[in-house]
Amino acid sequence: MNQAAAPPENKQETLQPVDAEARRLARELLRSARHGALATLEAQGGSPLATRTGLATDMNGAPILLTSTLSAHTQALLADARCSILVGEPGRGDPLAHPRLTLFGHAKRVAADGSDAALRVRLKRRYLARHPKAKLYVDFPDFSFWRVEIARASLNGGFGRAYAMRPEDVLADLTGIEALLDVEAGVIEHMNADHGDAVAFYARAFCNAEAGEWKLTGLDPEGLDLQHGDQVKRLWFETPLNSTAELRPLLVRLAAAARDSLGAD
Amino acid sequence: MNQAAAPPENKQETLQPVDAEARRLARELLRSARHGALATLEAQGGSPLATRTGLATDMNGAPILLTSTLSAHTQALLADARCSILVGEPGRGDPLAHPRLTLFGHAKRVAADGSDAALRVRLKRRYLARHPKAKLYVDFPDFSFWRVEIARASLNGGFGRAYAMRPEDVLADLTGIEALLDVEAGVIEHMNADHGDAVAFYARAFCNAEAGEWKLTGLDPEGLDLQHGDQVKRLWFETPLNSTAELRPLLVRLAAAARDSLGAD
Repeated sequence: MNQAAAPPENKQETLQPVDAEARRLARELLRSARHGALATLEAQGGSPLATRTGLATDMNGAPILLTSTLSAHTQALLADARCSILVGEPGRGDPLAHPRLTLFGHAKRVAADGSDAALRVRLKRRYLARHPKAKLYVDFPDFSFWRVEIARASLNGGFGRAYAMRPEDVLADLTGIEALLDVEAGVIEHMNADHGDAVAFYARAFCNAEAGEWKLTGLDPEGLDLQHGDQVKRLWFETPLNSTAELRPLLVRLAAAARDSLGAD
Repeated sequence: MNQAAAPPENKQETLQPVDAEARRLARELLRSARHGALATLEAQGGSPLATRTGLATDMNGAPILLTSTLSAHTQALLADARCSILVGEPGRGDPLAHPRLTLFGHAKRVAADGSDAALRVRLKRRYLARHPKAKLYVDFPDFSFWRVEIARASLNGGFGRAYAMRPEDVLADLTGIEALLDVEAGVIEHMNADHGDAVAFYARAFCNAEAGEWKLTGLDPEGLDLQHGDQVKRLWFETPLNSTAELRPLLVRLAAAARDSLGAD
């Protein structure tokens, strides 16, 4: 049925050039998603399968999934690792007028037997920070974590605003700042335990959030993930971190600026 | 990788027997969906593709899609009509604790050239009743309607509540009451124009809705689709209609019962 396809020049015409604003929107959708729609190929027959999945992100933005072996999408991914994930919730009005991001990639299962031990600890920590209730089943023997290697993405910012994206358009670059992987857990624990007021100031001053018990759930070179109950907010740094040494002064500076802007004492 | 698959007896164990409550939940999810996540096979390479689509239902419950030829999912469906649709929005808390329905089927494009004229009129009417803002683009030459023939479905009512369903578990049976297809448009127009008060009473008395300008957007042998802005409600008849002659007395009876229960005069 190739003759039915739109001519390439037409398809090209509808794509916008990827700019900083489009990249920011795509990253915001990815970093803010608590769940997504997962498309896989059914294990038997290869038909498309659409299912819901809980979502978190690894530090670079790679999606983290937690699935049960008993589920159809796990069986699908075991047979063919290719998958696509849709994120971005529609708000009021026409559901197609709201931005959404489709990711394409390969899901890699994280071994439970210890060969991926450090990776599993990190993915579990980041997933549970976003989904505290998953504590109830995360260690069940039929559950496993998956990390999705993004191959490409498609951003739809609303009618007539489609963008074809490369992995680097949606993911953070950890080159040169891999040490952040080692300090993240400690910084998050410290901030939530000892500087909960600063975390709440971040959310209110920079993310238009209401007051509440905001928690830091993730940090990466480009920003902070904040959460209060079901509300998720993303704070973007003005410039990405170049070294872990920049992190502490930045967090202090942001807290001071947040206090100032809120008129807090 | 078949050795990785769960043993059939395990998979079986997790499926619940399909009962009336499960059927009702599946139908409620389908009839109430304003949008869904569509899984298709990419035209080039057959990789899974997850996209958002606006949704309405035909009278029997078959999903209606409206897509642009320029979109990747249209290209996918033109190359392979197999698709899967996920409906059911997560509410508060763990997104996986909320019920959702995965439909599997084949999408059939509705010809714009007149050979499907009556079908197109009906699908367009039902789609626009649910998505009034689609009027802006429904007649653009690159847009077409699709009707999805459901082959099977999978209901996930929350943890441990999975059901494998046949088409008849989620669709309404129009056998013997095909005449409803001919009278639906007139009844809806009449109810909305002359009995808007009754429609609002239906929503408030039987669907826990707040007062508002509720409109009737669809009717079928099993119930009514009601809408006010972005809010969608489903009213289920106690027993399905057996003939179109039963419709008018039923609507009158329901209006009287609704008035009574609301203490209206």
